[in-house]
Amino acid sequence: MLLLIPGPVQTRPETRAAAAQDIAPWDMDFRPVYAGIRETVRQIAGGIEGEHATLPLQGCGHFVMEAAIRTFVPAGGKVLIPHNGAYADRAVRLAGEAGRRVVALPGPDTRPVTAEEVAAALAADPAISHVAMIHNETGSGIVNDPELIGPAVRAAGRRLILDSVSAFGALPISLAAHPEIDALVFTSGKCLEGLPGMGFAVARIESVTAAAGNAGSWSFDLSDIYQHALRAGWGSIRFTPAVQALAAFRVALDLHDAEGGQPARLARYRENARVLHEGVRGLGLTPYLPWEAQGPVIVTVHQPADPNFALQPFVDALKRRGVLISNFWNTQAPTFRIGCIGAVTPEDMRTAVAAIDAALRELGVRRREAAL
Amino acid sequence: MLLLIPGPVQTRPETRAAAAQDIAPWDMDFRPVYAGIRETVRQIAGGIEGEHATLPLQGCGHFVMEAAIRTFVPAGGKVLIPHNGAYADRAVRLAGEAGRRVVALPGPDTRPVTAEEVAAALAADPAISHVAMIHNETGSGIVNDPELIGPAVRAAGRRLILDSVSAFGALPISLAAHPEIDALVFTSGKCLEGLPGMGFAVARIESVTAAAGNAGSWSFDLSDIYQHALRAGWGSIRFTPAVQALAAFRVALDLHDAEGGQPARLARYRENARVLHEGVRGLGLTPYLPWEAQGPVIVTVHQPADPNFALQPFVDALKRRGVLISNFWNTQAPTFRIGCIGAVTPEDMRTAVAAIDAALRELGVRRREAAL
Ligand SMILES: Cc1ncc(COP(=O)(O)O)c(C=O)c1O
Ligand SMILES: Cc1ncc(COP(=O)(O)O)c(C=O)c1O
Repeated sequence: MLLLIPGPVQTRPETRAAAAQDIAPWDMDFRPVYAGIRETVRQIAGGIEGEHATLPLQGCGHFVMEAAIRTFVPAGGKVLIPHNGAYADRAVRLAGEAGRRVVALPGPDTRPVTAEEVAAALAADPAISHVAMIHNETGSGIVNDPELIGPAVRAAGRRLILDSVSAFGALPISLAAHPEIDALVFTSGKCLEGLPGMGFAVARIESVTAAAGNAGSWSFDLSDIYQHALRAGWGSIRFTPAVQALAAFRVALDLHDAEGGQPARLARYRENARVLHEGVRGLGLTPYLPWEAQGPVIVTVHQPADPNFALQPFVDALKRRGVLISNFWNTQAPTFRIGCIGAVTPEDMRTAVAAIDAALRELGVRRREAAL
Repeated sequence: MLLLIPGPVQTRPETRAAAAQDIAPWDMDFRPVYAGIRETVRQIAGGIEGEHATLPLQGCGHFVMEAAIRTFVPAGGKVLIPHNGAYADRAVRLAGEAGRRVVALPGPDTRPVTAEEVAAALAADPAISHVAMIHNETGSGIVNDPELIGPAVRAAGRRLILDSVSAFGALPISLAAHPEIDALVFTSGKCLEGLPGMGFAVARIESVTAAAGNAGSWSFDLSDIYQHALRAGWGSIRFTPAVQALAAFRVALDLHDAEGGQPARLARYRENARVLHEGVRGLGLTPYLPWEAQGPVIVTVHQPADPNFALQPFVDALKRRGVLISNFWNTQAPTFRIGCIGAVTPEDMRTAVAAIDAALRELGVRRREAAL
């Protein structure tokens, strides 16, 4: 089965094999593995030794995003969220339920937010201390670019929290070049091609230390995780982790490095996306995004208007052909989405395009004739 | 290596093998696995169909305990916590940082809290709505018995949250017989012998529904998890889970059943504890608890007073002999602790006792002569 979903992704056999062992998380033999993960992650993030720290959090992307918001934005504080996709929706809800005041900056889910929009929103409301932005919107496939938005946040004297859950490891980022970033967050099971189970924040130490007392939740207090790490000499982890996911993540990070790191991973994913985008157009389908707005993580496609099309039967027909895609969508218009991330190649994408063609034929779904 | 730690525990090979696969959590083939886990867990908890629901939460025991406290005790509400061990400490901190008012009922970590103590504390403070109690204290090995405390809570018209993280699956519990319990919480990697990565609450549906709006955290709102499960027809999970830990947990639950369920598991663990308790006494060491107070999950032992003893070198010497125990302790007096839980047998415990003897000899640690 070819998993073409935007996480948990298809992994390499050696990655998932590492999960089939019992490990005591605080064991002396495991501590260097754990310390090495934190160090590698900081390097991928372009963090500076002594200025940035990798803070692991058990669980999932929502949790580490809530933890970052709670830690950096004080209760009652105000956060601006560019609201142009399904994961921004989630950040809005996470912040709101945590008692932070949210200013949502609305936008269509078919284009990135612009620096001008962010600058104007920040200028209009001096009470906003932070911007929380989704790096890659995993519903539509657009990329909100920290290279453009970061300077606007910095110029306004505000701070940035970056949800890089579906981008980190593939899209470039350098924390050293972005002093306005308090933290970026991501999980083990996306572009770094590990198994799900662990979240991470790579945070500015100065910010995380200053944020002590903000979180209103011991579990989600990144400043406490940092203090714990210091106490334990960076050798231990607070609370029981998904330790098999950590062991697999170490292997996945080594494979990321062996492939050529972030640039090589991005190049492979971009080519995956290109083959898919071109391929579905060749089948008479309409991608949700024009190629210019298309990110490398997920290619989202309008559902054919034919009444013979329904998502679950289509997913089932694809699965019978060995290709698994998401059986839900979360764009403004009905779509299906195909992940470009994980241990998958452009060749796999060609297989997927052929399977999509065959599945639509089986269901008797008509497409635009011109393209056929 | 023999893992004798109170979680993550040693698992059976078939359990951990199940983690070495890629799985899409919302896939139609995985939904029944997931639904089956929830159903099996409810049955082990003695929950009533339609009255109790299994609510999974990504992460660890601290997280699901915080989620239960936030969900059932409203912000500013008051919770009584029998404070007789290291995990009660943690519950106190979790509740306090979440903005709940905590009344800690202090007690030594060498005996269970009594019904009289709980009744008196509840009578003294009508503002207390809930008791949060640790079922098995994983530092000392004592058991706080819900059979005794539950009725006192019920008689006082209050509600009980039970941290059964290191007890569930081995110590008996029947939610049907305990209408005062709003939820018990546990994790995948303890007495049910799965891998760590997932927490669970088995909750009273009436209570969880009534608690909507309490949590002050979307991530930790059990009422939202329940609503999500309803929407998805119990077939899907909110947020990305440690899905390999879930697949392994299904295998672990089948092995639990094949062994004879909770009574058989308890019997094996009790015998493990008996062999250890007797064995270390035979070596001239002093268990932290008298046999009468000794639970089946962990045997904790006073560190020998000899200056030749230090914990890490002792743990290292044991490890060279193939036995891994915790390299930290969290009782009121210095101890070391040996887990009785996981896929380990009384025979393994005899191996451990011999290894302890040899390790102490290697370190030149003297013990009480009488017993040698
Ligand atoms: C951009 C983004 N943010 C947050 C999340 C939430 O992550 P999780 O499902 O692990 O909670 C996702 C998951 O796909 C995501 O793509
Ligand atoms: C009784 C008890 N409660 C809570 C926890 C916390 O669990 P975790 O380490 O998974 O957060 C533990 C862990 O050992 C425990 O034994």
